[in-house]
Amino acid sequence: MKKDVFMFAEGNASMRDILGGKGANLCEMANIGLPVPPGFVVSSNVCADYYKNEEKLSTKLEENIITALRKLEKTSNKEFGNPNKPLLVSVRSGSRVSMPGMMDTILNLGINDKVAKGFATLTGNERFVYDCYRRFILMFSDVVMELDTEEFDRILQDAKDKKKIKYDYELDVEDLKNIIKKNKVYYKEKLGVDFPQEPEVQLMEAIKAVIRSWNNQRAILYRKINAIPNEWGTAITIQSMVFGNTSNKSGSGVAFTRDPATGENKLFGEFLMNAQGEDVVAGIRTPAPISHLEQENPALYKQFKDIAHKLETHYKDMQDIEFTIEDSKLYILQTRNAKRTIHAGLKVAMDLYREGALDEKEALLKVDASQLPSLLLPQFDTESLKKITPIGKGLPASPGAGCGMMAFNATKAIEWKAEGKKVVLVRQETLSEDIEGMSVSEAVVTARGGMTSHAAVVARGMGKCCVTGCEDIQFSNDYVTFKDKKYVEGDIISVNGSTGFIYEGKIDRKPATLPKDFLTIMEWAKKYKILKVYQNADTPTDARAGVELGAEGIGLCRTEHMFFKAGRIEKMREMIVANTLQTRQVALDKLLPMQRQDFTELYQIMKGMPVTIRLLDPPLHEFLPDLKNRKEIADLAQSFRMTEEKLEQVINDLHEFNPMMGHRGCRLAVSYPEIYNMQARAIIEAALNVKKENGFDIKPEIMIPIICDLKEFEFVKNNVEKTVKEVLANANATMEYKIGTMIELPRAALMADKIAEQAKFFSFGTNDLTQFTYGFSRDDATKFLKSYYENRIFDFDPFVTIDQNGVGSLMKMASEKGRSVRPDIKIGICGEHGGEAKSVDFCHRIGLNYVSCSPFRVPTAILAAAQANINNPKK
Amino acid sequence: MKKDVFMFAEGNASMRDILGGKGANLCEMANIGLPVPPGFVVSSNVCADYYKNEEKLSTKLEENIITALRKLEKTSNKEFGNPNKPLLVSVRSGSRVSMPGMMDTILNLGINDKVAKGFATLTGNERFVYDCYRRFILMFSDVVMELDTEEFDRILQDAKDKKKIKYDYELDVEDLKNIIKKNKVYYKEKLGVDFPQEPEVQLMEAIKAVIRSWNNQRAILYRKINAIPNEWGTAITIQSMVFGNTSNKSGSGVAFTRDPATGENKLFGEFLMNAQGEDVVAGIRTPAPISHLEQENPALYKQFKDIAHKLETHYKDMQDIEFTIEDSKLYILQTRNAKRTIHAGLKVAMDLYREGALDEKEALLKVDASQLPSLLLPQFDTESLKKITPIGKGLPASPGAGCGMMAFNATKAIEWKAEGKKVVLVRQETLSEDIEGMSVSEAVVTARGGMTSHAAVVARGMGKCCVTGCEDIQFSNDYVTFKDKKYVEGDIISVNGSTGFIYEGKIDRKPATLPKDFLTIMEWAKKYKILKVYQNADTPTDARAGVELGAEGIGLCRTEHMFFKAGRIEKMREMIVANTLQTRQVALDKLLPMQRQDFTELYQIMKGMPVTIRLLDPPLHEFLPDLKNRKEIADLAQSFRMTEEKLEQVINDLHEFNPMMGHRGCRLAVSYPEIYNMQARAIIEAALNVKKENGFDIKPEIMIPIICDLKEFEFVKNNVEKTVKEVLANANATMEYKIGTMIELPRAALMADKIAEQAKFFSFGTNDLTQFTYGFSRDDATKFLKSYYENRIFDFDPFVTIDQNGVGSLMKMASEKGRSVRPDIKIGICGEHGGEAKSVDFCHRIGLNYVSCSPFRVPTAILAAAQANINNPKK
Repeated sequence: MKKDVFMFAEGNASMRDILGGKGANLCEMANIGLPVPPGFVVSSNVCADYYKNEEKLSTKLEENIITALRKLEKTSNKEFGNPNKPLLVSVRSGSRVSMPGMMDTILNLGINDKVAKGFATLTGNERFVYDCYRRFILMFSDVVMELDTEEFDRILQDAKDKKKIKYDYELDVEDLKNIIKKNKVYYKEKLGVDFPQEPEVQLMEAIKAVIRSWNNQRAILYRKINAIPNEWGTAITIQSMVFGNTSNKSGSGVAFTRDPATGENKLFGEFLMNAQGEDVVAGIRTPAPISHLEQENPALYKQFKDIAHKLETHYKDMQDIEFTIEDSKLYILQTRNAKRTIHAGLKVAMDLYREGALDEKEALLKVDASQLPSLLLPQFDTESLKKITPIGKGLPASPGAGCGMMAFNATKAIEWKAEGKKVVLVRQETLSEDIEGMSVSEAVVTARGGMTSHAAVVARGMGKCCVTGCEDIQFSNDYVTFKDKKYVEGDIISVNGSTGFIYEGKIDRKPATLPKDFLTIMEWAKKYKILKVYQNADTPTDARAGVELGAEGIGLCRTEHMFFKAGRIEKMREMIVANTLQTRQVALDKLLPMQRQDFTELYQIMKGMPVTIRLLDPPLHEFLPDLKNRKEIADLAQSFRMTEEKLEQVINDLHEFNPMMGHRGCRLAVSYPEIYNMQARAIIEAALNVKKENGFDIKPEIMIPIICDLKEFEFVKNNVEKTVKEVLANANATMEYKIGTMIELPRAALMADKIAEQAKFFSFGTNDLTQFTYGFSRDDATKFLKSYYENRIFDFDPFVTIDQNGVGSLMKMASEKGRSVRPDIKIGICGEHGGEAKSVDFCHRIGLNYVSCSPFRVPTAILAAAQANINNPKK
Repeated sequence: MKKDVFMFAEGNASMRDILGGKGANLCEMANIGLPVPPGFVVSSNVCADYYKNEEKLSTKLEENIITALRKLEKTSNKEFGNPNKPLLVSVRSGSRVSMPGMMDTILNLGINDKVAKGFATLTGNERFVYDCYRRFILMFSDVVMELDTEEFDRILQDAKDKKKIKYDYELDVEDLKNIIKKNKVYYKEKLGVDFPQEPEVQLMEAIKAVIRSWNNQRAILYRKINAIPNEWGTAITIQSMVFGNTSNKSGSGVAFTRDPATGENKLFGEFLMNAQGEDVVAGIRTPAPISHLEQENPALYKQFKDIAHKLETHYKDMQDIEFTIEDSKLYILQTRNAKRTIHAGLKVAMDLYREGALDEKEALLKVDASQLPSLLLPQFDTESLKKITPIGKGLPASPGAGCGMMAFNATKAIEWKAEGKKVVLVRQETLSEDIEGMSVSEAVVTARGGMTSHAAVVARGMGKCCVTGCEDIQFSNDYVTFKDKKYVEGDIISVNGSTGFIYEGKIDRKPATLPKDFLTIMEWAKKYKILKVYQNADTPTDARAGVELGAEGIGLCRTEHMFFKAGRIEKMREMIVANTLQTRQVALDKLLPMQRQDFTELYQIMKGMPVTIRLLDPPLHEFLPDLKNRKEIADLAQSFRMTEEKLEQVINDLHEFNPMMGHRGCRLAVSYPEIYNMQARAIIEAALNVKKENGFDIKPEIMIPIICDLKEFEFVKNNVEKTVKEVLANANATMEYKIGTMIELPRAALMADKIAEQAKFFSFGTNDLTQFTYGFSRDDATKFLKSYYENRIFDFDPFVTIDQNGVGSLMKMASEKGRSVRPDIKIGICGEHGGEAKSVDFCHRIGLNYVSCSPFRVPTAILAAAQANINNPKK
């Protein structure tokens, strides 16, 4: 039987897998002597048991919890349910990685009618106590019993309306007692039982509710976005309460050891006096900057500053700290590595290195590789900005330049995004259920909330442009005003997350300038990685961008994109409708010089770095117009001097039930070898030209798609090679070149040892490999996979992060089989996963030679490759 | 260096892999003292070398051939190119399994101008010698040089026209010399060189041509139909010529030791005097029955009969023997296990057993399991036949009852078949290029040729109804006459392959009566097999048929087929257009009693044998009408009281780009658990009823399709199981049941150890598994796979025979993984492959528990399972 309950003294920071980040850090802080209210942690392992045990806690676990509770009573010298020295606790969730605001928390637990009376006497602050009781009833009813809280809100509002007051704190003790009474009546009416008075019953129910909150919709969605396994579960921290709302000598706050938006090395945060923690984060009252605490209470401010410094040094990373002041005494309630923008991430890592706290490798590990692409997002053109008057200003919560149609709720944002529109989500404040709406928006603006509000924290985590606390906005029923000017939903605004300014209409943007720290990090990353990082690029523009960002070659040039251009698609279509080899060849001869020019430009840009060119992949019908498009059909038929009926016949003949599984890739080359021969000719002729003209030593890599068998590869390869040899012989030249294959069908992976007899390189096409291994297509799956996430069947999107167990095992098998036959075979990946940090780590661990990804993800891949090799060094 | 040339004395029958069937048996016969002309064999291994060596023979091989040739000259006391004692040889193909007529042969090699002159003096038969020379030039030009032979035919025809004669044998020496001269002129004109006079050059070229003939179109097609690997290659037999055409004392013949159509134990065959072997098979002259040889030459007939008996005893199987008589001396040129109809196959095996030549296991191995389904083909109703006068009669070459439209050539037959028509191929005689046309026809009729003609041999191999030598047919330009009555292409005839009669129009057919020998063989097979054989059956009719044929359970009951029936599809559609759980449930409630009745009937028929029911599998749009069908759309919309636009919207929403990879199988049950719940309820309620009413101990097996992951399986299984438990609890009953899964996605195979934690059985859906492993759909692949066969990339159809290397390796992996976690897991296969003999053998070898196939393939599966266990016994 594994230990499932840990007193703070029994845990430490390394135990986050079972204690959760919050619990583990509370243990650690308690043990290094920081002022942490005492408590204990229930292991995250109990989550799985809970579901196995028909959603019940085991008797053994209940016993262990009670034992821990008794110890806590002893340490705190308070007792559960004892009105003379009542122990109140918080019950909090906390998984091994931070999931801010996704799961539930219950505060003030242990209070009941009797305790309230005693506690009021004890504190001499009856109003405070009954407010605690009111809040507890509300939270318990909401989180534990899942009652609709509307009625509670109505009761509260009625009380305020009756007294014609606006704020909760204006209610007096009698009001509160009255509200509590009404709440309890409503509770019994709905649930048929009285509100529970036994603290231990409250506790067990609260623990179960926190466990269940691991599986609420927003937590599932968050895990999906962040590829966090469902199995992990949440730990539960039970901690003696301290109160920031006892008087004006009390308060709560959140602070970062550095600025999470810019990385600047100064204490950054906010606090509210006479408030509990959630009041600060919820954004209902706008809190004061942390620096004001110095005026409020200089000694306490100094104590906090010292603790913050101690924590940063202890954890060797920027911290995000929650604290409460109870009657002028400071308590630390949480510390964690702070979420930050990539700008801050880079600066903090480099500053810590410059301060001597980290070495190069440690600094590299501090930067979140997946955030790097947001560095490359365009910025507003400063010149344009100067000419325009902003319509509002808020806090620069997360940098970036976002333009789009205003959506006033998440549903609208999601709907418009699905229609291909760009959206800015504008809200009073954001709540957890807004997560998905935020993730689809170009920018997020809130009227309330500070730099550590929900909107700010989540947006920074997403690398999303965000302005919070913009008090220039007033919400009305179906419109908003910015400084008295009315705007309706759908109006376009521009948001500058670096300055907090908001503008009307769309503002020009220009490419980002890359910070110097980025360049240093990239330089170091290149030094420590062993995976090569290539780019997927089909155009000179892409290729140039990738090279600038550090790409060491092209891992995937998709030749079909080149045929869709005007001036080419016509020839492509001519080729497709041709019904003899001869007429097909005529069309191909027209495409040859264009294709050669494509490759020439790419070779010139890549200056002798590897260029891997994939021969034609999609089914031919993709190049033909839709039959519904009668005008285009008529024109096309005329231009080919054929009847419309005949052209329709051609298009119908090419129709496929499942085009993904149809006549595509090398299968086209088995039917029409002349297509690949034209492409091979263009590849080699261009290489010879560039070698001659520019002196670059081009070694083309020709990649054959959709291979499933050695003999298929041999057949296509032999044809292609014949052309290559012919071109070289005609030019009386020699040239190193490689012919290799994509591994994108399960059978190719299974037969990799055979295929490697002939193939000089493998490139995993993990998009298709994922589709065929799972048996669903990306296009069609979007619809039904939603239920898979909701029902916790999938905890990540296999099209974003490699499915290491299934698809990954095929990759591993194929690599091993390939190497067993051809030890020096070059193996890489060119699916979208090649630029995703977790997948890059996997590619490193299974020993690939390179990853290839979109140019803008090259920095991510480089850093992820370095981190992978630091974590798991390969010789 | 492996030995690549073998004198007959150096080989034996067990060496067919390298010497080919023909070569190995010639060696064997020579060594047991039969009159075989001397010779040697070039190993089939040289085929692969030939292609690796740029289509050349290696110097070493050429040397070895010459050495063997010298030995042959010594043995035969004849010499290559020596006019005084000339050695002439045949060069023949022969692979390890018989591919009759698929590859090339060259006879009379070694003749040239000088040799002809000497040979004529030596034999005193100038006409014979120059006819040999003429034939050699023709064959060499055709087979080796691939010249178009039309011109040769024209020269020959001109000569006959000039003399106003009809037959070749009416030409005299001068005519032949003249023809040879013209042939040589044409040869030089076309090829720019003289016809080769050096016998050794002729020999090397001929050997290369025979190697190449392994890869001609018809050989490739034959291999595909029979799943023969392309790698095997052909051996080449070089043998001293004997001549059946020297005089009327010479002749050639072909004979079977028993009747290949019925199995009757009497010498069966044909011969032609004064003829070479190909004259007998080609069907140009109708030969005499072998019994006539007794009158012609009683001693020789007795000698042949004794040899035939000796060979049958030696090989323990019915033989197919080629012989030549040269000047009254008998030579045996070939023996092989005879191709036979399944009727003959059963009788021969059982007769040999009854004669004491074979034991039960050996007898089982003699029957071709794949032929068994043709036993089940319907036969003409004897009563109907009595009332009708046949329009023609030929030889009953291969039994069966075929009706269809007459096609006068293979192209037409293929075209009509593709349009869904039933065709009877009617030809003067068939040639190798007619193979595909024959394979798509219901029956084959030829005007010429005997019981051993090409048409007869190939049709028997295919289990195809065939009548040969029907002299009542006369061919004209665009019609045929049967006894003076004119018929055009497309007219329907009926062909009785068991009697040789042909009838006008379509004749009623009735189910076949199964021969007694079949029942014995099945009984034995059940004794020796360990694989269980189940059937795929969705209807009572199917299920009854399968049980009658020996099925031991239902391995796949596809529930969707039940929803397409009238009276149900309406409810299914109602369910699909429902947009709330409640309305969906209303429709499902209507389907429940129907579905329950389906299962009740099946359980009653299966009497307690396992019944595996697969829950709904296809995407929902398959149940809705096509949008083009406006009338149906309008009616449907009206019946659902919705607008047509709304219905269109529903249909459009369900549209998928790749439906095979879409919202189907268990994915539907994740979105709409209520569908599977209704099915689970029907399954259990029906089982309870039948248990109660009929007393059968039903143990339903519920099969979930399209599973890719354990958690997915768990989710769906838990829902289904909840319903099962609910039904059982309501009935206050217990029942054994299993919930298992299809393994039809590559990922399911890869994750089989995880899935087996929860699944009680696996059933390989090899149709889908093949599609996803290869990444092509059966529907779309037909078009492009043609080129794959033509180009020798694929040598079998993976949808017919399991791809053991790719798909099979996933099956093996999944079985091993599944058993590692759940040792008693029941594992089977329910794809089409479950009834294909080679695939059944594979399933046996990887240790599956059962195979399941269409009812009519159950006997094949049973016999193949027994053969598999005899060949590779499992404990």
